Amino acid sequence: MNGAESLVRTLLCSGVDTCFANPGTSEMHFVAALDRIAGMHCILGLFEGVVTGAADGYARMAGKPAATLLHCGPGLANGLANLHNARRGDVPIVNLVGDQATYHRPLDALLTADTEGLARSVSRWTRTARHAYDVGADAAEAVQAARAAPGGVATLILPSDVCWSEGGVVAAPPPETSPKPVEEDVVRDVAALLRSGAPTLLLIGGAALRAQPLADAHKIAAGTGARLLAPTFSTRIERGRGRFPIERLPYPVESAIDALSGIEHLVLVGATEPVAFFAYPGKPGLLHPADAVVHVLARPQEDVAGALAMLAELVGAPAALPAVAPASAQIARGPITPHAVAATLASLLPEDAVVIDESLTFGFPFFPGTKDAAPHDWLQLTGGAIGDGLPLSTGAAVASPGRRVVNLQADGSALYTLQALWTQARERLDVTTVILSNRAYAILIAEMANVGASIGKTAQGMFHLGDPDLDWVRLAQGFGVEAARADTMESFAGLFRTANSHAGPFLIELVLP
Amino acid sequence: MNGAESLVRTLLCSGVDTCFANPGTSEMHFVAALDRIAGMHCILGLFEGVVTGAADGYARMAGKPAATLLHCGPGLANGLANLHNARRGDVPIVNLVGDQATYHRPLDALLTADTEGLARSVSRWTRTARHAYDVGADAAEAVQAARAAPGGVATLILPSDVCWSEGGVVAAPPPETSPKPVEEDVVRDVAALLRSGAPTLLLIGGAALRAQPLADAHKIAAGTGARLLAPTFSTRIERGRGRFPIERLPYPVESAIDALSGIEHLVLVGATEPVAFFAYPGKPGLLHPADAVVHVLARPQEDVAGALAMLAELVGAPAALPAVAPASAQIARGPITPHAVAATLASLLPEDAVVIDESLTFGFPFFPGTKDAAPHDWLQLTGGAIGDGLPLSTGAAVASPGRRVVNLQADGSALYTLQALWTQARERLDVTTVILSNRAYAILIAEMANVGASIGKTAQGMFHLGDPDLDWVRLAQGFGVEAARADTMESFAGLFRTANSHAGPFLIELVLP
Repeated sequence: MNGAESLVRTLLCSGVDTCFANPGTSEMHFVAALDRIAGMHCILGLFEGVVTGAADGYARMAGKPAATLLHCGPGLANGLANLHNARRGDVPIVNLVGDQATYHRPLDALLTADTEGLARSVSRWTRTARHAYDVGADAAEAVQAARAAPGGVATLILPSDVCWSEGGVVAAPPPETSPKPVEEDVVRDVAALLRSGAPTLLLIGGAALRAQPLADAHKIAAGTGARLLAPTFSTRIERGRGRFPIERLPYPVESAIDALSGIEHLVLVGATEPVAFFAYPGKPGLLHPADAVVHVLARPQEDVAGALAMLAELVGAPAALPAVAPASAQIARGPITPHAVAATLASLLPEDAVVIDESLTFGFPFFPGTKDAAPHDWLQLTGGAIGDGLPLSTGAAVASPGRRVVNLQADGSALYTLQALWTQARERLDVTTVILSNRAYAILIAEMANVGASIGKTAQGMFHLGDPDLDWVRLAQGFGVEAARADTMESFAGLFRTANSHAGPFLIELVLP
Repeated sequence: MNGAESLVRTLLCSGVDTCFANPGTSEMHFVAALDRIAGMHCILGLFEGVVTGAADGYARMAGKPAATLLHCGPGLANGLANLHNARRGDVPIVNLVGDQATYHRPLDALLTADTEGLARSVSRWTRTARHAYDVGADAAEAVQAARAAPGGVATLILPSDVCWSEGGVVAAPPPETSPKPVEEDVVRDVAALLRSGAPTLLLIGGAALRAQPLADAHKIAAGTGARLLAPTFSTRIERGRGRFPIERLPYPVESAIDALSGIEHLVLVGATEPVAFFAYPGKPGLLHPADAVVHVLARPQEDVAGALAMLAELVGAPAALPAVAPASAQIARGPITPHAVAATLASLLPEDAVVIDESLTFGFPFFPGTKDAAPHDWLQLTGGAIGDGLPLSTGAAVASPGRRVVNLQADGSALYTLQALWTQARERLDVTTVILSNRAYAILIAEMANVGASIGKTAQGMFHLGDPDLDWVRLAQGFGVEAARADTMESFAGLFRTANSHAGPFLIELVLP
């Protein structure tokens, strides 16, 4: 057995059975091993950012890592932005990077680069395999490192000779581990704080944004008067009718400061201290009141849901689900506005949908506006590196057969990784992409105002995507995805219904005024 | 004057007057400065790989660096693959990366990444600006570092507060420097070697691939019987009718070894020792005979052209230009083959064209087949990170008004950075893109054979781009570029003529059998 075969077999027996790939020459023995060994679902991406973003989306929905397959330092570089997003979202990925043979590296052939250095910038665990007889064990360690709570990117670099040499040994699958429980004393301290009645906010992130821990959080709020918020950007939130809702910390600095004003205690529940996304002249970086005391109920790597359950038992009271407005009457007509689109989404979102939200500026009302939609998961851009909506949708759909993926997608961001559409077509994935076509980097127009500058001719050219306008219908069709344009709310509603019942991917270009 | 203004003014007075940009929030003050100060030609790319590849193409033709403008670590990451290519091609780029404010970085906001670490992997010079009053001087140093022979990537990271703070000082432009002359003794030693009559090959790269030094190289060959070769991949070769031709070292390992067999002395002229692009089981990494003696006439950072001129004076004899076959009769008909396409290109290439060659496997005959075409420049992928053909074309066209850019482009590679088409449309650049549409990573099919593996079902899925086929005409039109499909040699010839006389970009999808 060569190194590549031991690698594939170890991954399979560790439960990693899906591989998003954009291979090159140095990965040929890995591909050959995949040919010989059944069981790995291999999915080709036409660009590495598609591969890594899809692995992110897959793991968020599958609850376990996929493998990637990338080619040398520059191939890894192309996938780094979406690995950065996965890192910030605590998403497990077994990131495999083929590379120059160990003995060939010193010759510094043209494609040679600092693969390890690049990998370290996004990985919690990085290793270059050295011997065929070790690579199985390396793979098992990579799986373990990726899965350890709360999840992260583990990069295993595979010199080609390590893969083609004989002597591979299949490693035992790593043990399944649970996140570390929170000490009871810590929970009791937070319970005492909450009972004191001081103005307190629970910032709830990570694993606590599933339905059960959110129900526990609402019990805590009902029992103590504490307020609840989720971070601005989250990996996965279970929500919709019949589930307890949660608001998110707003993105604009002023709104975030307002949302946190008046609190004396901030309790972090699987979340980190909230800070401004960027610095702005004369505005603070920390968003909570300077004199608020910060407490930690549970760190992201701890059993966040268990800590909330324990806390609810100590201080909770029964919480009532909020009343739900009847949705069917709300399909919006008239001008295309963010709120109108939100209303249509709320009415027509399919049961059990997976929403991928990279809607940015136009989409601010989408999250609050859809809290009473049919039950769904809401997945966001977690690291700020725009261009992961289409890949996330692709991977989420691979992991969620039978569920509709709905991608609410800003046009400027979509352009970074639009090649994902082809993978959606090839894999016949049930993805509805809604391109919010405002033909601008609208967020930059807002940010230019935030920094106090006016917009002149050069800035116009840098922020507007027109001249020529992008034709998303043709772009989608070029990748083999059916597509249509909506320029009224009525046509959007019709197309959104059509798309969601369409077998395979469908793209709607929603032309914004 | 704030830091951003001092930066823009320093760049302008240093001769850097073109900026390829994909800005974000942290670059708003730089964009605002560009609004206030006339003279910088700003060109938007929809993806950072387009920006960095275009800066590469621009510098190759302009003979001076452009600036880039990228956004934080992940934005830089998206541009790294083409910066890797520029690094390997010794191409000057002033790589500007906006980033978190100095005082905001410790808060580790979501988009914060190891920007300096990422930059170092591709840069010969990396600095993070610290103060508004220094940033002008930093910019001048970056320009100097990028330009120093043979050219390279200089990365200046710009925390947003450094840009917005007052106190900026415009720096004096850095002095123009010439590459260091080669010592006369070194040239005399090589002359003595050549006079000895021992089988010797001059491997000629970098700045020696322009018309005059190539003429000198042919004089040396005529006077001594030495053989001449260029590296497999080069930054820019001046060639075509009326110029002295040069062959390139073949890409396949066996062919490269054959090409170098029998030589006893290898003289490097602005080139590095030739090594295999990848290692293959049982094949050597060094391509020249193990007992050949390697000499250096000139290192890439030295005056390579001057050294050749001096050597030609010492040992050269008049060299005759080879006879040119009449080209007009050679427009190929019949089946679409690499040689047929080469013949059509040789006949129809416009006078003074700039050819961007990322044609890979199908294009092996293009270079030899076009040696008698109208005079032109030939630019290649220099670092093996596929996906720089469309961006290179974009930048080369910006730098070469009045000349037609002809991009001979493999389809799989084109997909990495296809967003460049939009920039070509917006800037109305005279680029003819010929997509060699074989719907496969054909090079990997060949490489799979090279490593001795057969192609099974999984490999088929990873190497073939069909199911669904990409429709390049729609993709181009989606980006605002006129396009048409050719599926015979006759229609290709017609479209190639049309495209080359078309104002602005035109894409031909040449459907390969």
